[in-house]
Parts: sequence; structure tokens; C-alpha cells
Amino acid sequence: MPRSCTGRFALAIRSKIPQHRLSFSGGHHVRRPADRSLPHAGFISTRWQDADLNGQITSAAVYGFFDTVIQSWLASHGQIDPQEGEVVAFVVSSSCDFYASAAFTDMLQVGLRVERFAGSTVEYEAALFDMSGKQLHALGRVVQVFIERNTGKPATFPQHLEAALSALT
Amino acid sequence: MPRSCTGRFALAIRSKIPQHRLSFSGGHHVRRPADRSLPHAGFISTRWQDADLNGQITSAAVYGFFDTVIQSWLASHGQIDPQEGEVVAFVVSSSCDFYASAAFTDMLQVGLRVERFAGSTVEYEAALFDMSGKQLHALGRVVQVFIERNTGKPATFPQHLEAALSALT
Amino acid sequence: MPRSCTGRFALAIRSKIPQHRLSFSGGHHVRRPADRSLPHAGFISTRWQDADLNGQITSAAVYGFFDTVIQSWLASHGQIDPQEGEVVAFVVSSSCDFYASAAFTDMLQVGLRVERFAGSTVEYEAALFDMSGKQLHALGRVVQVFIERNTGKPATFPQHLEAALSALT
Amino acid sequence: MPRSCTGRFALAIRSKIPQHRLSFSGGHHVRRPADRSLPHAGFISTRWQDADLNGQITSAAVYGFFDTVIQSWLASHGQIDPQEGEVVAFVVSSSCDFYASAAFTDMLQVGLRVERFAGSTVEYEAALFDMSGKQLHALGRVVQVFIERNTGKPATFPQHLEAALSALT
Repeated sequence: MPRSCTGRFALAIRSKIPQHRLSFSGGHHVRRPADRSLPHAGFISTRWQDADLNGQITSAAVYGFFDTVIQSWLASHGQIDPQEGEVVAFVVSSSCDFYASAAFTDMLQVGLRVERFAGSTVEYEAALFDMSGKQLHALGRVVQVFIERNTGKPATFPQHLEAALSALT
Repeated sequence: MPRSCTGRFALAIRSKIPQHRLSFSGGHHVRRPADRSLPHAGFISTRWQDADLNGQITSAAVYGFFDTVIQSWLASHGQIDPQEGEVVAFVVSSSCDFYASAAFTDMLQVGLRVERFAGSTVEYEAALFDMSGKQLHALGRVVQVFIERNTGKPATFPQHLEAALSALT
Repeated sequence: MPRSCTGRFALAIRSKIPQHRLSFSGGHHVRRPADRSLPHAGFISTRWQDADLNGQITSAAVYGFFDTVIQSWLASHGQIDPQEGEVVAFVVSSSCDFYASAAFTDMLQVGLRVERFAGSTVEYEAALFDMSGKQLHALGRVVQVFIERNTGKPATFPQHLEAALSALT
Repeated sequence: MPRSCTGRFALAIRSKIPQHRLSFSGGHHVRRPADRSLPHAGFISTRWQDADLNGQITSAAVYGFFDTVIQSWLASHGQIDPQEGEVVAFVVSSSCDFYASAAFTDMLQVGLRVERFAGSTVEYEAALFDMSGKQLHALGRVVQVFIERNTGKPATFPQHLEAALSALT
């Protein structure tokens, strides 16, 4: 929770042309600003609709990037069929700190790591970087619960998913 | 951070018709499930595009609801012009716990409260309820920093905004 | 196709405060600018995310408004369950002319009319107005085909839907 | 409108696993189903949020893809700065026929061609294909008008834009 968010931000406009982009730093302890060795990376091409009227990629769009990379990884590496599979994942909690704004037409990458998993719950760390991996835009946590599609009850992870999650820790 | 998310979820499908809707409860301590007396409420009519392929309003959409109600309140009550005004607000941190899923064609309300504000930073509590206010769908925190549009430096709150923020605590 | 779009637009900024809003007029023959007596109206509260970085509600967002009002009408008046029902509707063709831009935090209304329906195909006229009904923002056409969910074959309209569609012509 | 849309659709489910995908054919005259030699192509990675609750990439999302590729091309090839530039482009008309549905996690490409341009108006043809270029998902038209940001009046194309548009015809 941003409850730890101390609010002493030092802001600096890096550039007004071609877009306003902001760097936020200060009170936050950026836990892994230089650590780009997250075990999985997904790529995001920003869209015209992602930017708000100040030219910033919105925070809600960033959560959508995280969902996209996680669900895509689940489909490809975890063999989870999001539409017809027996188990399905729901976000039950998430959070994100935003360190620097991104803008259309940036290409971005989302580094993904499994922080922990147990029972039917997975907690991911997701980090939004530019393509060089030098600029951290946002650092988030997403917690998913897996349930059985037919009963709605918490599901145990399928075996191949458990193996995949282990590889992502 | 969902760090407090203990992962012992008891899930119950409330209804499969017309949509799967899930209630999440358990490990979470819901801080104000029955407190609907948040000082401001904005209304959200769900859209076809908000639902994912499991019929759930996505978590990213919920963050978009929060942005919408906050920015709308800033425009109407805080006299902040999001496009031309001298100060502009950016989300620097946010988080949300999701307690029950919503579905298209639900009408929803977002209760809004200012948790605290100081310097150039505001922290809001935002709660997504159904229209009766009995069902809490999601409970979130959003932290904004206000900056001067022209310089990019942290801005002091305009006087009318400070008064409006006080009224929302 | 906007084939009739002759491109002699007379543009006028109506206001720069609080947002740039544009009126497009000229070559277009606005078929029903003053006709607000469309048999159904749905309401749209604009969202922060709908606006592009010039402050305009994007054209793609407008198509989303049309989808929302049509699918909502199908659910409530046509008794079509979008997630579990036996028949499901897909957009196979659409078009829209944009006459004046809208901006966040506008409240808008979408007037809906069934232009024609036959077999498994429905063609709607959808008109985006401001709440007074005096300002036409956009005028569109949406063509849907109904199919059987299980077979993917064109579906005949359920009886109650056929009655509802008739009432909307 | 989709005036050529005769409504005699022959539908065939291509696959129910992993997602329902539909092919629409029949009454439509597909003008260039096999012509993949559009002079510019942009790439779209689908997102979790693009799919509706039937697993289809929504039609509104497709219009967003077109906007994205056009605005991206204008920024990179036409040297149009969407946020600060002197001229800015607005969609005044658009249309699209949908031939086959796409699904998350598809990678897609948008072929782009300038159909014609004159005065301050450009008409694009945009075609949504799979990555092989063999499957046409959607074929659209987008008409933009360029205006002067400060006056709101129709703008003449900057010279480099005119050259770029010529190269795209």
C-alpha cells in the first residue's frame, strides 16, 4: 500500500519536447531501479489511447500493461487458457509506484518475477522499463487467485503452472 | 502493498447467470466495508469494454474509475482545469484490494475521501460500491502530486483546492 | 465509406477553456442533426481515459460508447445474455461521422434506432448528443450479426428480441 | 453505410480452442483481401483489455489500433508532434468492415495506405492482418482533418508531411 508513501517528491521535467515526461524521486526507496534481470520480459507498444490529455501514459494503462504481460505469460508458459481453461486467475490486490512518466509512441518492457506463490495465490513483481532497461517507469505488485471455473472455489495450481511459476521466482 | 495479502481466500460464486461474480474474503481485513459515508461519490456506468473475457470488470478498469472520479472532482470542486490549468496532478502511487467482482451492465459508485494532504501531495481513499452501497467491490488508495505545468516543479495547492481538499477529509 | 466526406470543413474553436472543442461542418449532409426523437437513449459519463492528449474524446472511444449502449439495450430490452446466452452478437461493420468533439467531464447521450433487421443481421443508427440533445457530436451506423454460441452459425432472432427490435425501428 | 453491407453472412467458427474466432464472409466484396503490399505496416500486440467477454477483440479496439498506427506514422514519418506541434489531426469520419475476429494474445499488423489527400484532409485505408498477412481481420477507412492548434482553422499540410503522404499513396 502506498501507505508507506512519504510524499516528499522531488520532481524534474526531463523534457517538454516532444512530450512532458516527469521523473519522480525522493521519499521512495526504489528497491530495484538498476535490476533489470527479472526472469521474464514482455513488450508493450504504447497506443494513442494510453495517453491522457497531459500526454502521460495513465496509471490505469500501466496496470493494463501488467495484466497483459501476466496473462500472456500464463497462456504461453503456464498453459492457462484464459477463456476455456479449468482454472482462471483473478486479480485480488495490486499496487504500483510510478517513477517516471512514459509517453506515446514509446516502446516499453515489463519485467516479471514471481515474488511468492502458495495455495491458490501468486504474487508477482512487475517493473515497467524503457527498452534500454535503464529508465524505470513504474514498479508494481499484482496478486492473483486461481479458481476453478465451474465451482468458483480456490484451485490448486496445475502441475505445469507450478513448474512455470517456480522458474519465475 | 498487497504485502499484507495473506492469501487465504474463501471464494464463493454468487451467481453464474447472467455473469460470474466472485466474492473474495478471508485474510484481508476490510477496513470499512460498511462505511459508505465517504464525503463524495461519483457514479460509473460500466461499459462493454470494461469486462474481460471472463465477464469481470478488469482491475485496470477499476483504477480508471478512480482516476475518473478524482479528476472529475478536481475539475468541479477543486477548480483544476486538467488541460490548461497552471497546476496539474499526476498519480505517483496507487493500490487496490478487490473484494467482489463487478460486471457489465452494473451501475457503480466510487466513494472518495482525502486521507491526508500536505505540500504538493494528496492521498485519497477510493471505494467502489454497488449502487445500494452494500456491496464493496474494491478499496483503493491513490496518491497524487501537483506540479506547475510550466516548470514541472512541485506546486503549492491553489487556495480553493486546499479548501476543497479540507472538506473531503 | 465516409466516401461522401468532401473535406471542405469549416472549423471553429468554440472554447479553449476548459478544453479545445471543435465543430466540424461543411461538406457533410447531417442527416438528422435536430432529430432527437430516437426511440432509445443510453447515457455515457465520459472518463479521464477517453480523452486523447489534445483533450478530445477519441473516435475509438465513441465506437465504444455505441457498443456499450447497444449491448446494454440487448441485455435489458432484448433479453440477450452477453456471457451465457445461446445467441451472441458481433459487429461486422460500422462507420461514424464526427461533427463536434466532446471532452471530459461531459455527460453524453447516445440515441439508438434500428435502421433495419432481417435474417440474423441488425443495422443500428447511433447518434451521440450532449445532454440537451442540441449538439450532435457523432452519427454512426453499427451492423451486428447474431450467431449461435455453440455452433458459430447465423442465428435466428429469439422471439422477444424480434419484438424489441421492431419497437426500436 | 457499410452501405455495401448486404447482410448475407456465412459464418464459420474456425476454432473454439483456445478462443472462439469467427470468419465473416459472403455479401461483402472484400476489396483487397490478398493485397498485403500496403506501403506502411505498424505492429499491434493485443492486450488483455482488448477482448470482450466472448473473447473477441472488440471493434472499438480495432479503431484504436488504426488511430495508433496512423498517429505513430504521423509522428515518425510526418514529423507531426501530437502534443506540441503547430498542426494537429482529428478524425472526422471512419468506417470498418470486420472479416474475422482476432483474440488475445495475437500479434497483429496494420497495413496503411493514403487513399487521397487534398487541402487539409487525408483519407487512409487501414487493413488489420495477422502476422503472416494471410488473414485479413478488418478493413477500414479513416478521414482526418488537420487544423492549426492555435486558431482551430484548417491547416495546410507542412511540406515534409505532404512529401510523406505522397510516399504512402
